[in-house]
Amino acid sequence: MLTQPKPQNLNWKAIIKEFERHVGTKGVVQRKEELLTYECDGLTSYRQRPKLVVLPRTTAEVSEVVKICDRYSLPWVARGAGTGLSGGALPTEDCVLIVTALMRKILKIDLENQQVVVQSAVINNWVTQAVSGAGFYYAPDPSSQIICSIGGNVAENSGGVHCLKYGVTTNHVLGLKLVLPDGAIVDVGGEVPETPGYDLTGLFVGSEGTLGIATEIALRILKTPEAIQVLLADFTSVEAAGATVSDIIGAGIVPAGMEMMDNFSINAVEDVVATQCYPRDATAILLVEIDGLAVEVAKNAERIATLCRQNGARNITIATEPAERLRLWKGRKAAFAAMGKLSPDYYVQDGVIPRTQLPYVLQEIEKLSQKYGYAVANVFHAGDGNLHPLILYNNSVPGALETVETLGGEILKLCVRVGGSISGEHGIGADKRCYMSEMFSETDLETMQWVRKAFDPQGLANPGKIFPSPRTCGEAASPKTLERYPGVDQF
Amino acid sequence: MLTQPKPQNLNWKAIIKEFERHVGTKGVVQRKEELLTYECDGLTSYRQRPKLVVLPRTTAEVSEVVKICDRYSLPWVARGAGTGLSGGALPTEDCVLIVTALMRKILKIDLENQQVVVQSAVINNWVTQAVSGAGFYYAPDPSSQIICSIGGNVAENSGGVHCLKYGVTTNHVLGLKLVLPDGAIVDVGGEVPETPGYDLTGLFVGSEGTLGIATEIALRILKTPEAIQVLLADFTSVEAAGATVSDIIGAGIVPAGMEMMDNFSINAVEDVVATQCYPRDATAILLVEIDGLAVEVAKNAERIATLCRQNGARNITIATEPAERLRLWKGRKAAFAAMGKLSPDYYVQDGVIPRTQLPYVLQEIEKLSQKYGYAVANVFHAGDGNLHPLILYNNSVPGALETVETLGGEILKLCVRVGGSISGEHGIGADKRCYMSEMFSETDLETMQWVRKAFDPQGLANPGKIFPSPRTCGEAASPKTLERYPGVDQF
Repeated sequence: MLTQPKPQNLNWKAIIKEFERHVGTKGVVQRKEELLTYECDGLTSYRQRPKLVVLPRTTAEVSEVVKICDRYSLPWVARGAGTGLSGGALPTEDCVLIVTALMRKILKIDLENQQVVVQSAVINNWVTQAVSGAGFYYAPDPSSQIICSIGGNVAENSGGVHCLKYGVTTNHVLGLKLVLPDGAIVDVGGEVPETPGYDLTGLFVGSEGTLGIATEIALRILKTPEAIQVLLADFTSVEAAGATVSDIIGAGIVPAGMEMMDNFSINAVEDVVATQCYPRDATAILLVEIDGLAVEVAKNAERIATLCRQNGARNITIATEPAERLRLWKGRKAAFAAMGKLSPDYYVQDGVIPRTQLPYVLQEIEKLSQKYGYAVANVFHAGDGNLHPLILYNNSVPGALETVETLGGEILKLCVRVGGSISGEHGIGADKRCYMSEMFSETDLETMQWVRKAFDPQGLANPGKIFPSPRTCGEAASPKTLERYPGVDQF
Repeated sequence: MLTQPKPQNLNWKAIIKEFERHVGTKGVVQRKEELLTYECDGLTSYRQRPKLVVLPRTTAEVSEVVKICDRYSLPWVARGAGTGLSGGALPTEDCVLIVTALMRKILKIDLENQQVVVQSAVINNWVTQAVSGAGFYYAPDPSSQIICSIGGNVAENSGGVHCLKYGVTTNHVLGLKLVLPDGAIVDVGGEVPETPGYDLTGLFVGSEGTLGIATEIALRILKTPEAIQVLLADFTSVEAAGATVSDIIGAGIVPAGMEMMDNFSINAVEDVVATQCYPRDATAILLVEIDGLAVEVAKNAERIATLCRQNGARNITIATEPAERLRLWKGRKAAFAAMGKLSPDYYVQDGVIPRTQLPYVLQEIEKLSQKYGYAVANVFHAGDGNLHPLILYNNSVPGALETVETLGGEILKLCVRVGGSISGEHGIGADKRCYMSEMFSETDLETMQWVRKAFDPQGLANPGKIFPSPRTCGEAASPKTLERYPGVDQF
């Protein structure tokens, strides 16, 4: 484990001048009030003001900025749109926050070879908008897709509702232009899907800003399917809904998405947005989207409806037209917002379990919810076994957040116990690093550290993220230790 | 660049005793005649006898064997079934060849979660055989699938006819148990598709034995499709066949496989195996396999046939029944063997190009063929743009191999020039490392070396593979320098 010397007696005035030489005076933010915006990302329970913010516009500028950090051993954190939910873009004390927000150009659209090259702060949804007229789209669709950046998606290997059929970000990135922690500019991957040598593209996607900054990203785009249908089925037991999910996959059907909501979520959504589609007395509903050729979709809709009925579904609604489909999706899409209206605060957890464990895990979550006395709503990607338990609480009650974090942690441990994972699509960031040891052995984690060190011997890139450390994750420490003891004293 | 000290004055007798303590006396092969088998893999033009062969049976034994190598700084090379085509398992002088051939157990079949866990020398085809009764199969299908090992597939990130729709090995590996170059046993990935932290599974797949040995591999299996059809279309111009490929993909159809054969290959195949399906006067034929639901396949067959006709196809044959499908495939599957019968020797190249460049690249290959005076047959995965030019020659003619290698190299450079890659599915190994600089900058290659060094600071694992070195790939050196100057003097 490398010990990171804390920069001492720096002449910040001179350093800022150096940054300004490359990004201009407007490219450096240093006034305290202006820095407030950058104190946290989507995980708002952690906050830390950076020393300063630098806003480069090109790969060359990013490289120069990183070189300055390297020269003065300044820890730095990259930030895209700042919508991440695990604190991956949370600043550390005295860090330089490198914000890519001005790098918003779509550099190339090559429909014939089905790819788009973008600068890293291009918004996820813009990619689809740029090519939808020609009948293409970009598949990964995190729920923040209208505000999150592709660079952030790459850092966190983001998923979305459609990753059941189409995979997560890593399956859609063909190549990257990277600035490494020493400022070197490197191209990994390429225009063709597989390139020889080590798969550094795959290694970089999901590395949460600890190996460098992606400045340009080549994305694979897909042809818009001919037909889409959405099925809504409601069940009187979670077991029946879970068994239906298994049966659909077991039949060889791969829906574009397959979502489950429990009774609590259904009622929360109906209270707030009144879709009038979701039956309030259902124990669980399944929303299944299928796409492909019209004949294929029609056939699969029939098969799925049969499987739902065989498992005791009470009602099945099938939507074929865009407006109807949107109506069925409306509640699911509004679920998080609905929780926000029902409860002063909520905490979203993100864990993965083998699909077959769904009924058992939901029962156990219910037991944990009763044990800790906090309501847990379940809205999740059932097809992938990617759970999103939402724990409702009131942050103004002393100790509530701590208890909720403990409850969230117990849910993660449960996921690992049944053979799953502590993160499906939100990343580890600052939030979950203390749970990495639940999933990985010392040797496993050490191997990852070797790789990190190979890229970043000084340990300057996004310190304090992903990996647990004895000091911050010891017996007595809470996951919030980072906030209380910010710093970069080690990887 | 790290310089590897050559082991000096080793007490081999004592070292062999150490190996024998872990793998038994039968587990160590040291007699010269017995070592002959291990002199080369599927790339038979390079040969080098290893110092000795060790045959472990378990992960623990592999770990102990690697630890001994680490202790005495012995270079080692891992070998599965030895069917690789780029010399990835070629021994270096005085190396310990770690052969996994005895690790052939299928450890777990989990149909519900659609995965199979195997030891590394399990044959590719066995996986499908083990689960086909239950309606599942393992998708990656290199043409050597009845003899190649899963461990070798992982090392080379092998593809196959069906990788157009289903992806290559890396898309089907969920997790790995690894022995690293220091002997540590590490688990990467897991039972669920995405796990947090760095994607070391993805990094390892395709690392060609340079980062460690995979001893256990968790594979994703797929449901056997309801229907399969094969279309054969023949064309009077390569442009028309190439345009058809683009049109099919452009229409959003993803065939399971889409292969092209040129006139030379068609006639070679008809001379040798007489399929009587392939018209001898066609300039090119396309074989398109589609799978999925019966209704979907029928619809897509119709669409593909229309696109073929629009591009001027003369005849279209559609096979729906298994026996008919096999008949259409027979010539394609026998193509390499047919070349072997027509010519004393042939050299298979493996390069990738953007699909849209097909007609141009085939023209250029024809020009190169004429320039060098060697016939080049083209049989390839057209859908992925993965070319397999087969250069026919006679190795007993002095200088022929060298010329053919130069011609092969020119084809690779052509692939890179149009935005492609120097390897689609055979790996770099010993054969193509001197072309890596065509594709990657110094900085790109250096970044890969950092990663290699993080795993293997002594540079003992499969030295002399993947990466070019000034000495072996300098102006005056040929790709065969490895044979002439074996050794491990550097990464």
